[in-house]
Amino acid sequence: MENRIYLDNAAASRTDPEVVRAMLPYFDEIYAVASSQFSHTPGILAREALDRSREILARRIAASPEEILFTSGGTESNNLAVKGAAWAARGGKKHLVCSKIEHPSVLHSCQWLEKQGFGLTTVRVDGEGFVDLDHLEKSIRPDTLLVSIQHGNQEVGTIQPLDRIAGICRKKGALLHTDASFSFTQADLDLSVIPADLVTLSAHRIHGPKGIGALYVRKGTPIEKMMHGGYHEYNLRSGTENVAGAVGFARAVELSGARETARIRALQRRLFERLAAAVDDFRINGPEDMESRLPGNVNVSFDRVEGESVVLHLDMKGISVITGSACFSRSLEPSAVMMAMGFSHERAHGSIRFTLSRFNTEEEMDRTAESSRDVVEALRKISPLSK
Amino acid sequence: MENRIYLDNAAASRTDPEVVRAMLPYFDEIYAVASSQFSHTPGILAREALDRSREILARRIAASPEEILFTSGGTESNNLAVKGAAWAARGGKKHLVCSKIEHPSVLHSCQWLEKQGFGLTTVRVDGEGFVDLDHLEKSIRPDTLLVSIQHGNQEVGTIQPLDRIAGICRKKGALLHTDASFSFTQADLDLSVIPADLVTLSAHRIHGPKGIGALYVRKGTPIEKMMHGGYHEYNLRSGTENVAGAVGFARAVELSGARETARIRALQRRLFERLAAAVDDFRINGPEDMESRLPGNVNVSFDRVEGESVVLHLDMKGISVITGSACFSRSLEPSAVMMAMGFSHERAHGSIRFTLSRFNTEEEMDRTAESSRDVVEALRKISPLSK
Repeated sequence: MENRIYLDNAAASRTDPEVVRAMLPYFDEIYAVASSQFSHTPGILAREALDRSREILARRIAASPEEILFTSGGTESNNLAVKGAAWAARGGKKHLVCSKIEHPSVLHSCQWLEKQGFGLTTVRVDGEGFVDLDHLEKSIRPDTLLVSIQHGNQEVGTIQPLDRIAGICRKKGALLHTDASFSFTQADLDLSVIPADLVTLSAHRIHGPKGIGALYVRKGTPIEKMMHGGYHEYNLRSGTENVAGAVGFARAVELSGARETARIRALQRRLFERLAAAVDDFRINGPEDMESRLPGNVNVSFDRVEGESVVLHLDMKGISVITGSACFSRSLEPSAVMMAMGFSHERAHGSIRFTLSRFNTEEEMDRTAESSRDVVEALRKISPLSK
Repeated sequence: MENRIYLDNAAASRTDPEVVRAMLPYFDEIYAVASSQFSHTPGILAREALDRSREILARRIAASPEEILFTSGGTESNNLAVKGAAWAARGGKKHLVCSKIEHPSVLHSCQWLEKQGFGLTTVRVDGEGFVDLDHLEKSIRPDTLLVSIQHGNQEVGTIQPLDRIAGICRKKGALLHTDASFSFTQADLDLSVIPADLVTLSAHRIHGPKGIGALYVRKGTPIEKMMHGGYHEYNLRSGTENVAGAVGFARAVELSGARETARIRALQRRLFERLAAAVDDFRINGPEDMESRLPGNVNVSFDRVEGESVVLHLDMKGISVITGSACFSRSLEPSAVMMAMGFSHERAHGSIRFTLSRFNTEEEMDRTAESSRDVVEALRKISPLSK
């Protein structure tokens, strides 16, 4: 894998060797369960490591440690937020609102609750992926329990104006959940300013390990557990705590910061510029304004070629990217996100997502633009869609 | 932690250094998501590792790889089995049966479904923790959807006669789920012989990492997913696959076997014998017949002392054990398992669980018996319960 250029970091990023190093003692030295803190010293050591990790996450979003629950990942956090809030309402409010471009773990959770008798309204987005705030406001009814609007989009990188969204939810009396799986540490999120009630955080997109995530639950937010069993995680998430995972997650948060984000932003700008210089006829998918776009996200559609073919040819040149959404990569359906943004089937099918990380280099951006040009030109020559 | 004697392996065991070694490449070398196998080479490598791990687990219980779903652990597997089967029944059969000594993740899942309108019958156990098979048979009604009976008990180590239990369930037309979290690789489980439909497997009790488990789902068993999102794990468990965790789980399975089990059995026998020689007036909790007891489980109640005090004094001597169940260690309730076995409050409160692993030694068993004697004698001298 030495010379490969890995540009699928929004799916999963390299676990930072420093993160791995931080985790190692929690495999074969301090391995007791954290809930045995009242029984023995190894349990106390595990508990301390878990609590330190919780504090590091909390501090990053201006939350209290007891507002952070560790879960198995973003998907579980999204399920717990949506279903847990719905169950806690106990037949009172029975209406949910989410955007049309939510991650499937939010959208399908809402749709599942719809089958159980909840109402669901999905809010429109514009051509750059921004939620239609008027439609959002009109969609929230007196019986709306929860609004779930993501922070940053998984495919096109659109960063939603969470302050305005939270303001609308507060004004209309609905809880706000935001899925920050793709934006955490990469876009600002200060919960002392933004009154979101539930926030999903994920580790493996910021060089933490897979199998660990977190859910922020603002103090007093009514939520019922999804996984029953022991009294772990403030009795909101049963199951032996993944201490090594939590420690790795926290270390990844510590290693991420403004300097890293600035570096990734520069790479993003460079890749967009180099692509523009090298390839004719492509469209940028998602916001043109880079400040409203996740720093690592470069998403484009090359006219007159299939995204699938570009992906496979780039892989042969050692460059890893995807078309559409990673979660749907087996499906021939066009990206639901792009259809909601009003794209044609061709543009959606032709989309290529490059997602960058701090382990990428300027030279890799240049090679990626050149390889993209070579692949697209070769494919266009044999394409029935050629002009 | 050098000279400590760790005897809380049924809560969590040391991740074997060989398991850690097997996992390492899946943190910072092969870190793509396994569902990107159709997009790029790193995804193919992740998928291959995941599938190899699945095969290793399947082979151990005579299952097919596509009958194994990876989850975040035993608690999730138990929740998915019980709730997933209930949801899949879609208002048809609405009655559940479980034993009174199931792990809280099974018991509380059943009780939660009870609140949603399902019926629940809990089956009695005898003084050694064996399920009352007559009561089981009588409890299964024509509308019984699922029976959930554990393989080995978490506290007293009782191994249930799964062949007879499965026979009863088959005869009466109910699905059988068995929680093998505490028995997997330590007690035989051949699913080509025993017709269980759903089986929970856990990694961190057999020197695998925390945060990974599995659920066996026999081909054709109706089950609905609990975590919605992408189409992972045969579309029965959404969420980015924890490849490193799965690889570690599989390596732990490979490292466990008849030789290890025989070694642990010998340590178990030795600790029981040494305790009998050193300490007066104690009762064995769980089966007297060692063949019906999980190999690593030694559970006793010392008369006229509080289990809590024994645990804390043993910790001061560097020995890690628990009283009652780890999942309830913060609670002052007596163990639900022991109350169901008909024990007095005193006996339940006085119970000490020593759980052994292949990393323990004969010398440790001897020191543990001696320290137990010293602690119990000292406590008895100051106990108001003294004769």
